[in-house]
Amino acid sequence: MNYVAPVKDMLFAMNELAELAEISALPGNEEASADLVETILDEAGKFASEVLAPINASGDKEGNTWTDGVVSTARGFKEAYASFCETGWNGMPAAVEFGGQGLPVTVSTAVLEMWKSANMSFSLCQMLTLGAVEAIAHHASNELKQIYLPNMVAGSWTGTMNLTEPQAGSDLAAVRSKAEPRGDGSYAVSGTKIFITWGEHDMAENIIHLVLARLPDAPPGVKGISLFIVPKFLVNADGSLGERNDLVCTSIEHKMGIHASATAVMAFGEKNGAIGYLVGEPNRGLEYMFTMMNHARLNVGLEGVAISERAYQHALAYARERVQGRIVGDKSGENKPILHHPDVRRMLMDMKSRTEAGRALAYYVAGCMDRARSHPDAGVRGANQARLELLTPVVKGWCTEMAQGVTWNGVQVHGGMGFIEETGACQHMRDARITTIYEGTTAIQANDLIGRKIAKEGGKNMGILREDIAATAMTLRTTGDPALIALADSLDRGIAALGDATQWLLDNHEAKPQAAAAGAVPFLKLTGVVVGGWLMARVAGIAATRAGDSDGDFYKAKLATAAFFAQHAMPEAGAYRDAIMNGADAVLALAESQF
Amino acid sequence: MNYVAPVKDMLFAMNELAELAEISALPGNEEASADLVETILDEAGKFASEVLAPINASGDKEGNTWTDGVVSTARGFKEAYASFCETGWNGMPAAVEFGGQGLPVTVSTAVLEMWKSANMSFSLCQMLTLGAVEAIAHHASNELKQIYLPNMVAGSWTGTMNLTEPQAGSDLAAVRSKAEPRGDGSYAVSGTKIFITWGEHDMAENIIHLVLARLPDAPPGVKGISLFIVPKFLVNADGSLGERNDLVCTSIEHKMGIHASATAVMAFGEKNGAIGYLVGEPNRGLEYMFTMMNHARLNVGLEGVAISERAYQHALAYARERVQGRIVGDKSGENKPILHHPDVRRMLMDMKSRTEAGRALAYYVAGCMDRARSHPDAGVRGANQARLELLTPVVKGWCTEMAQGVTWNGVQVHGGMGFIEETGACQHMRDARITTIYEGTTAIQANDLIGRKIAKEGGKNMGILREDIAATAMTLRTTGDPALIALADSLDRGIAALGDATQWLLDNHEAKPQAAAAGAVPFLKLTGVVVGGWLMARVAGIAATRAGDSDGDFYKAKLATAAFFAQHAMPEAGAYRDAIMNGADAVLALAESQF
Repeated sequence: MNYVAPVKDMLFAMNELAELAEISALPGNEEASADLVETILDEAGKFASEVLAPINASGDKEGNTWTDGVVSTARGFKEAYASFCETGWNGMPAAVEFGGQGLPVTVSTAVLEMWKSANMSFSLCQMLTLGAVEAIAHHASNELKQIYLPNMVAGSWTGTMNLTEPQAGSDLAAVRSKAEPRGDGSYAVSGTKIFITWGEHDMAENIIHLVLARLPDAPPGVKGISLFIVPKFLVNADGSLGERNDLVCTSIEHKMGIHASATAVMAFGEKNGAIGYLVGEPNRGLEYMFTMMNHARLNVGLEGVAISERAYQHALAYARERVQGRIVGDKSGENKPILHHPDVRRMLMDMKSRTEAGRALAYYVAGCMDRARSHPDAGVRGANQARLELLTPVVKGWCTEMAQGVTWNGVQVHGGMGFIEETGACQHMRDARITTIYEGTTAIQANDLIGRKIAKEGGKNMGILREDIAATAMTLRTTGDPALIALADSLDRGIAALGDATQWLLDNHEAKPQAAAAGAVPFLKLTGVVVGGWLMARVAGIAATRAGDSDGDFYKAKLATAAFFAQHAMPEAGAYRDAIMNGADAVLALAESQF
Repeated sequence: MNYVAPVKDMLFAMNELAELAEISALPGNEEASADLVETILDEAGKFASEVLAPINASGDKEGNTWTDGVVSTARGFKEAYASFCETGWNGMPAAVEFGGQGLPVTVSTAVLEMWKSANMSFSLCQMLTLGAVEAIAHHASNELKQIYLPNMVAGSWTGTMNLTEPQAGSDLAAVRSKAEPRGDGSYAVSGTKIFITWGEHDMAENIIHLVLARLPDAPPGVKGISLFIVPKFLVNADGSLGERNDLVCTSIEHKMGIHASATAVMAFGEKNGAIGYLVGEPNRGLEYMFTMMNHARLNVGLEGVAISERAYQHALAYARERVQGRIVGDKSGENKPILHHPDVRRMLMDMKSRTEAGRALAYYVAGCMDRARSHPDAGVRGANQARLELLTPVVKGWCTEMAQGVTWNGVQVHGGMGFIEETGACQHMRDARITTIYEGTTAIQANDLIGRKIAKEGGKNMGILREDIAATAMTLRTTGDPALIALADSLDRGIAALGDATQWLLDNHEAKPQAAAAGAVPFLKLTGVVVGGWLMARVAGIAATRAGDSDGDFYKAKLATAAFFAQHAMPEAGAYRDAIMNGADAVLALAESQF
């Protein structure tokens, strides 16, 4: 089943929700004309369909091979990666000064969605590389930038994030890897890192590891962690590759999904210490990592959207083709594809509407990032930065949780064939499974949301968001259109649930922190579904004005999708509110021995 | 991670919800004394832990090997199966007259749950064999029974169900396999069958295939399908094995889960026709299959409970052991296991309470089956038969859908380790994935529920069920205990949602059959959560009277689990009702071209 980039849907979300025209008018974005953006999306869509999608299933089946520290990628990956770099796609989202195209985040978001849909395993290599580029660009010395960035942006060198250790997963305070000064300005880095995505492979000349480690005099906990560049091959003064550094991939994991991306166990400094270079100041490593973690979280949220889109296309194609059973209530007497069975339709509409809501959210937040970076008005920058920070954990948490149900339904639509690996539907479900775990589990996102993003500032930005949603509901009501008024009703119920739950959190966060934390994940889902419903309702408001266009069918479908979301997804808001506000005691009731 | 049978929980559900004492007093069940039942459960628990659980992960990893029609099972399976048969576990649930122990269904349900938890792949072989035994015992001639049943009950021969063909999945009307009379009372059967669980293997001397096929003069559709016994090896007059029959396993599937159970493609009659024997009368095959399908559906629902239990035990063990991060609101300053993180607790409570609710439902319905079979009072038999029929699709549909979230949370509790195959948590999720598909997808169950079980009889039995639930709420209220009154409130909200949705279905089933079908799956889930909540509330009512016992901790935990279910699961009822009653139009709105 090939993948076709949903360019029209993407452009719609970019134009209407991220408001691309405004973004393109911001300083530095002048080149991002509507024509150029459409051309980029068309070209990227072709590359995704023709180069990346065809090696997705084979990559899943073959996986990577580890032999004595050398990792060989699945067939076709080396060639695809070479082509990806050659055509400039690898560095495209990076800043112009480092060889990228400096396009708005909104535009690169759509392009990245395509890579993730076409081949999630493949896309992770670029994602990690660009994350490392971002950390280096923001925090490293000019010398380090000049040595590493151009090749990383070009893709001839790839990047990794080495955070996790066996005893330090969600809790990075427990990091034990060490870095000792070597007297020449470099450091001898040692320690074991696990879960290193694309930590070792054969697609690039060099791999630049960003490693969290402790200096000898570092304070304990998160305030004693520094960030180091530790290249696989040392770089000579003339920029050529020198000796192999003292680091090795000791094994790769057998995972449930993303088989074609090697997840490495990395041993640093087992001989004399791996030579590393301090990024920025000592003991600020975690802070630097978070610069890129926040962006990486948005990108993982986008993975949720992308894998959902792929699963939807896959299931839809099967549902259009497979003829099975009489359609209830159908008097034609004809055999029809299963797409006509009401429950298959329900599943497809569920997949479609949630995927569109996730895309709406991810692109909307990308727009906030563009405005927060480049808008000339400080007030607008501040408001967009606040919205971006509030919604980053929601994009990560809700879009990835959403993808679980969507990819699950993708299997279900296929019936028995769905369970057969060759069909390909379960790969999407297996690939999606990691997204609620890495870059911070849903619980980590939810605690960020209720703590730093809400309680810490007394719920101010959540209040502004609720007002914006209420304003949309009001606007929809004024149209007098019953379909839009129904959406407004649904939004008002959603805001009420969100308001109640937010107030409960504010009342309890300090006094009963465990009770608040017990409701954190339901609260994140509540926020996600209401904000998703809001953006879908805005889409509907726009679509209603265009239903008579030559392209009316496209807009009518948007109205139906928004109605489905309001009727089938939004009612969850009340259930989440009830669980948050009434359910904390039961979460905490049992003694350890009673489980 | 080993499996320990939750004997105490099982006995509680058997005694209090299925009301085992009453069942043991029914004619024919006299031997099922409380002591004997406890001994059986203890012994079965040992066998499950010591023999079946240890080969679960290795079986998943190795799978089966197909070579020229011969299927070799994973290491240890042959030996485990021999021991399973030798100790009498294989035939235990069968009737005494065929060599079984003739125990109440309630008792065998608990034992079967253990096999399914310990090793779902392994357990399928017995499940299919006993299903075939049931069909033969009810519908075949005495001669066929005498030839086949004793060896099948003993397990030296296993059984299969050959229904599905490439073009005939959910729609058995499309079956094309043929059976031509051979003139000697036997038939020449030919055709291709797919998805045949344990269709070929090396654990037994013979495999007895039950095959749906059409006689030459058969009417089209479901009324022209007959049922045949087609043995792998023909049986000589003296009972010894004769020639190999003309049937062959042409391949086995690569599946997402249940790797250790071969799913075979079977080719019948590629040479001269496979010799088969008609079961019962011509053209009644589907009806006969349904005798065992209904029981098989309960058993697949039980798989949902069993795999949930296993996933819960697995996640709990990890959560007790793994130390990570500071616990929010904890002033002890100690490092504690992740079990103490509120969100990990929330996930474990969710897993625990839903698993217990699923078990409550499955065992309760097993009790209905026992009473429907053996109660001396025809009125009681009838009432229990009606309840059994109403809830069979709910056990199958809801318990298996429930298992998806539970096994998913089992992975999530493990964090990054959950995604690593060696951890074992994803095997449960992958194994669980088939349960909402085989033996009739959730949509098939849901259509059975809203059609045959509700609309066809004007909602009568659903009304009686709602009255029973209301009576429980009333009883809980009279205690004056605030915790029980809160459960009563939750039940009343649940009944109201179920009542509204049932009435809507009754109003629309005839006039708008597609709209009704669009709400079928949400309606099944609504019924499941409300009935689950009812049984959990009954548990709480009993537990409240025993919280002061020496065993008080066990009962206090039951109260907490019931409260959790009421607060976190029951609010879904309102969301399902809304989706059913308001959401049909949006399901059906799009033209095929608009997807």
